[in-house]
Amino acid sequence: MPLSANNPDKKSWLHVDKNSDFPIQNIPFGVFLTRDDVITIGTRIGDTAIDLGALHQLGYFKEIPLTDDIFLQDTLNDFIADGRKTWRAVRNKISEIFDSENDTLKNNNKHKEFVLFRLDEIEMQLPVQIGDYTDFYSSIEHATNVGTMFRDPENALLPNWLHIPVGYHGRSSSIIPSGIPVRRPKGQTLPGDTKTPIYGPSKFIDFELEMAFITTDANDLGEPIPIDEAEEYIFGLVLLNDWSARDIQKWEYVPLGPFLAKNFASSISPWIVTLDALAPFKVQGPKPLKEQLEYLQYKGKKSYDINLEVAIQPQGAKETVVSKSNFKYMYWNMSQQLAHHTVNGCPVNSGDMMGSGTISGPTKDSYGSMLELTWKGEKPLEMKDGTKRKFINDNDTVIMRGYSEKDGMRIGFGEVSTKLLPVYKKK
Amino acid sequence: MPLSANNPDKKSWLHVDKNSDFPIQNIPFGVFLTRDDVITIGTRIGDTAIDLGALHQLGYFKEIPLTDDIFLQDTLNDFIADGRKTWRAVRNKISEIFDSENDTLKNNNKHKEFVLFRLDEIEMQLPVQIGDYTDFYSSIEHATNVGTMFRDPENALLPNWLHIPVGYHGRSSSIIPSGIPVRRPKGQTLPGDTKTPIYGPSKFIDFELEMAFITTDANDLGEPIPIDEAEEYIFGLVLLNDWSARDIQKWEYVPLGPFLAKNFASSISPWIVTLDALAPFKVQGPKPLKEQLEYLQYKGKKSYDINLEVAIQPQGAKETVVSKSNFKYMYWNMSQQLAHHTVNGCPVNSGDMMGSGTISGPTKDSYGSMLELTWKGEKPLEMKDGTKRKFINDNDTVIMRGYSEKDGMRIGFGEVSTKLLPVYKKK
Repeated sequence: MPLSANNPDKKSWLHVDKNSDFPIQNIPFGVFLTRDDVITIGTRIGDTAIDLGALHQLGYFKEIPLTDDIFLQDTLNDFIADGRKTWRAVRNKISEIFDSENDTLKNNNKHKEFVLFRLDEIEMQLPVQIGDYTDFYSSIEHATNVGTMFRDPENALLPNWLHIPVGYHGRSSSIIPSGIPVRRPKGQTLPGDTKTPIYGPSKFIDFELEMAFITTDANDLGEPIPIDEAEEYIFGLVLLNDWSARDIQKWEYVPLGPFLAKNFASSISPWIVTLDALAPFKVQGPKPLKEQLEYLQYKGKKSYDINLEVAIQPQGAKETVVSKSNFKYMYWNMSQQLAHHTVNGCPVNSGDMMGSGTISGPTKDSYGSMLELTWKGEKPLEMKDGTKRKFINDNDTVIMRGYSEKDGMRIGFGEVSTKLLPVYKKK
Repeated sequence: MPLSANNPDKKSWLHVDKNSDFPIQNIPFGVFLTRDDVITIGTRIGDTAIDLGALHQLGYFKEIPLTDDIFLQDTLNDFIADGRKTWRAVRNKISEIFDSENDTLKNNNKHKEFVLFRLDEIEMQLPVQIGDYTDFYSSIEHATNVGTMFRDPENALLPNWLHIPVGYHGRSSSIIPSGIPVRRPKGQTLPGDTKTPIYGPSKFIDFELEMAFITTDANDLGEPIPIDEAEEYIFGLVLLNDWSARDIQKWEYVPLGPFLAKNFASSISPWIVTLDALAPFKVQGPKPLKEQLEYLQYKGKKSYDINLEVAIQPQGAKETVVSKSNFKYMYWNMSQQLAHHTVNGCPVNSGDMMGSGTISGPTKDSYGSMLELTWKGEKPLEMKDGTKRKFINDNDTVIMRGYSEKDGMRIGFGEVSTKLLPVYKKK
């Protein structure tokens, strides 16, 4: 099916600001609560949210084989399970409905009243029920920085790193959409050179700048996904702030990996931007430094050029951008990650989420965590309000943004913005 | 609410073999497909499966506030979310309906035809949709054995082990009920002293003898569960075979923990035995070897005396019991695990599953994995058919069983039985 929705010359009859992340070529998918307290699946063009449940009820998708309630759900899981052909047909149809040369909905005020919402009339929800969440560790700059700081600068990368897209399982229950605040966690830490751990609030709360992809039903138990088919099973991407408590992590993570240091919260941007919308921004990935095993070898472009930035906004002050990175720096791409994840027959389902790992770039201002940006807190960052940060303070808001841009077209993700609240106190 | 269902003197009008795991004092919960191809929630007394959906439709639970379709579902999640008061009321009511002194259902042949099934008429399903699966590492004997084999016999336990109920996140999508076969996984390994990894079938497939508990909705994001309330949120337990590929594990697990070595399959017994049914088998746990932080300190008995065994059945041969262990050996108990898991505010939901980690006992015949039983393959085990095993062979079936016994009463789990098939070949 042709990607007519990607036509760069198309304009929408809905207003779209020049620098909007959401031109008619984007057409992301999300779930929102409307002014009438109804949960629906929707998309967004410019600053207008579009109720796909209402559009479908009004008959606008009648040529596409869809169940009646496919958009009247509180998650995208069933729609994503319908597969790539359906996603493309729906995205192309939306593009047609809102094309500046199509008057049908444009001139129907009654329909528009049902279908269109201002952003301040809706409340974005988690777009999918995430069955399993996997987090990879695929940025060579990040892995090298961490290895240099905590192990051996001469052998910063562990022996398996250049062979395996290293990953681990995260916690689904604490994945939250942009806007939901996070509490500073308590836990066990072993401060400085002491020998007995203490219990109390984490002192080193960090963000991790990541992207994550959402999958469709991909395989049965026991059946691997070949690398050249992997992208067929990726619905789209979101921004991910994988909150981390560095002091808890340091004490707990040997030998089974990070646990409570990560599972208190992971924040995602609410609009899933489809892999189809990002197709024009495919680029060649970094050259392998060592030969990779056959099941990880791929042909063509499998990396994506997506500009990323992180800002910290102290309470009542202006934000300060602290990092600018790019998704294209990832040493291991999504196809390699998915092929590796399933090489043992592990089943991947609709709504599963896989994070990239912290996306650090080659320069010091492109690192994807405070741990790296302040080099373990040795070089604090100065905020615009004059205060300094080694890690994240209570009541700071961390904001991540991302967009692709080429030949005057910009496809973006909006933002994931999360405030860090002080520790929980029993009422 | 009194646990009248636990009355040891009660008999059922349904036949129960003397050594059955399922006397009227058990009343576990499960999900099965009936002879009419209907999925329902049920329980079991002796070798009779009981359709709770049918019982409810016939009005047998009318005094209990339950939604009409609570048992007509393909998972127990909603019933478990109803909370402990409801579980107890339903279990007590089932006990009353099948009490030998109650003729109501016993004498109603029409009702019995709707409600009762022979075991060969049903097919057990996964009892819950598992949102998140966590696996702990709470047996001191297992952690010591692993540390002795792979690190340092003098310092077998890592520094954090006596302070933290160490755990990590597992994969929900590959959890399967007893009876579903598992395929030998392929993956990356680094054999012997080579320097370059190879890709192929795992050569060292192992079981891990574990138990797992299933939770109800326990807390909101950010809110810890105090240790003395933890058992309120535990619905019940199952047997867990946490399949492991030791060669894949060895190469991949540093620094983020086991991943593909574990997520190809985890098998559970299909009947969830409630914590209430196991109450008579509470025992004191092992004494802490080091003082534990306050949030992990508890009063009273929080361990459970549950006999466990593992058998290997080669294809076409008789089974050989290779290990006898007990759940009471766990150094960290379930209350400590749940308090630790939520101390940072990580939310726990209905249907989450938490594994104990391999349950090894103090003697060599009570170790919970082939890795330990054969000491890395150095001492192969002899099967009854004369063949030997270092690890699990293709077409072997691994069977785990568990039961509590005291004063002539036995409450058991049945079994989790899983055949290992050869590697996947593309059709």
